[in-house]
Amino acid sequence: MLIVGEKINTARPGIEGAVISRNVTFIQDLALRQKLCGADVLDLNCTTLRHREPDALRWLVETVQTVVNEPVCLDSPNPLALEAALRVHKGRAIINAISAEESRYQMLIPLVKAYGCKVVALCFNDGGVPNTVEEELQVTRSLVERLVSDGVDFEDIYLDPFIRPIGEDEHWGNFGLEIIRCIREEFPKVHILCGISNISYGMPARSLLNRTFLTLAIYAGLDGAILDPENKGLMASLRSTETLLEKDPGFRRYLLAFREGLLT
Amino acid sequence: MLIVGEKINTARPGIEGAVISRNVTFIQDLALRQKLCGADVLDLNCTTLRHREPDALRWLVETVQTVVNEPVCLDSPNPLALEAALRVHKGRAIINAISAEESRYQMLIPLVKAYGCKVVALCFNDGGVPNTVEEELQVTRSLVERLVSDGVDFEDIYLDPFIRPIGEDEHWGNFGLEIIRCIREEFPKVHILCGISNISYGMPARSLLNRTFLTLAIYAGLDGAILDPENKGLMASLRSTETLLEKDPGFRRYLLAFREGLLT
Repeated sequence: MLIVGEKINTARPGIEGAVISRNVTFIQDLALRQKLCGADVLDLNCTTLRHREPDALRWLVETVQTVVNEPVCLDSPNPLALEAALRVHKGRAIINAISAEESRYQMLIPLVKAYGCKVVALCFNDGGVPNTVEEELQVTRSLVERLVSDGVDFEDIYLDPFIRPIGEDEHWGNFGLEIIRCIREEFPKVHILCGISNISYGMPARSLLNRTFLTLAIYAGLDGAILDPENKGLMASLRSTETLLEKDPGFRRYLLAFREGLLT
Repeated sequence: MLIVGEKINTARPGIEGAVISRNVTFIQDLALRQKLCGADVLDLNCTTLRHREPDALRWLVETVQTVVNEPVCLDSPNPLALEAALRVHKGRAIINAISAEESRYQMLIPLVKAYGCKVVALCFNDGGVPNTVEEELQVTRSLVERLVSDGVDFEDIYLDPFIRPIGEDEHWGNFGLEIIRCIREEFPKVHILCGISNISYGMPARSLLNRTFLTLAIYAGLDGAILDPENKGLMASLRSTETLLEKDPGFRRYLLAFREGLLT
């Protein structure tokens, strides 16, 4: 299970200011706290900064990698920002996110090739977000084939099926789980990663729905999630799900989290 | 989803004394509290009282049905206690639990027939608890066939696959889920109900494992559980799981639980 820490994102309250003022301590603290809570990889997103994004993303990479000496997830569709960041990035970055949209694919794939990146791949094309499971699987299939033919290994692809809110249609929960189940069956080596919180948009007690959906999605085949690792309930659900599904040999992570008081 | 409230059980702390002293208020309060928290049916178990069980179980039925005018779940393998209780019971009781053990089956099936009961059926026979999924399915298959040939409708059977602790073997979580999945596939009309808490025996943070396992089991096909409906975390997981899997039309139960402050 790949846990991607989502908190370094200028769309989140308080982050944009820290990035604009180049507040090193603030960002490094945010990075370390997420790692301490169990994040495997940190997502960096400063797309709200528009023309200042390339400089900011490069600065974020340098700032974060100074304290967390591991690859990060570069969350941007902007090739200029990605290239600026990749130039200083140490290790194999994950580019988040490519998609089957023609112009986005063509803009990003040269960077993926040049820097040997892993990719988060969104399961939609220029036709927009698919409305049936079969349609979404078609888009996903051709996206995977294209990435593989462009030299990306199955193991370096993180498919991101778009999760829609049940508050909009009660069916979207089962729909998302079915997509995950089908992708897992068809592409056993590919990773499936998604943001969780969209599922609960517009509903009361969102944290509860998020943590329950995470458990269901892992059972369906999800093996990665972009989330707030400081959310104790969510991480507790994740750790207990891994443990119940034999994805945590010797209950190592579960017991560690318990000792650290993280299981609520 | 059938929620069976488990608290009126003389094996639980404080209950035996109340039953022996025929404390009507205590038992009725326990019954009403469980109903208020969402129990559909109340389980009555006083097997610890041995030779005094028949009188006590009859008294429990009368005491509980005075305030909760609905059928109960008679949790005993003792035909004398069951008969004493069934004589005064109003409506169609659930007998918990018949099994494929020859002597138990033969003792209980006449009562099931005479009183038109529903049954909770344990998935093991005289050979003990099965150790492979295929073995357990074999036992389950022949138990269902036998019950049906004895006139019990599929819809009145609640299969209870025995859930074993992951603390004993990491595989028991996946094993239990696989059994549930296979039974659901093979017998779409039969109910599947089990106790949840055994899964976490010997592990730290048991409540967390129980609520997570409940979510996984419902996704696998479980449609009933014997549990403590006053356990907020467990019920919150149950309500959110139902909502995410389209088992709660219009989010009716979810929103009601939210308004009552039960979703944590």
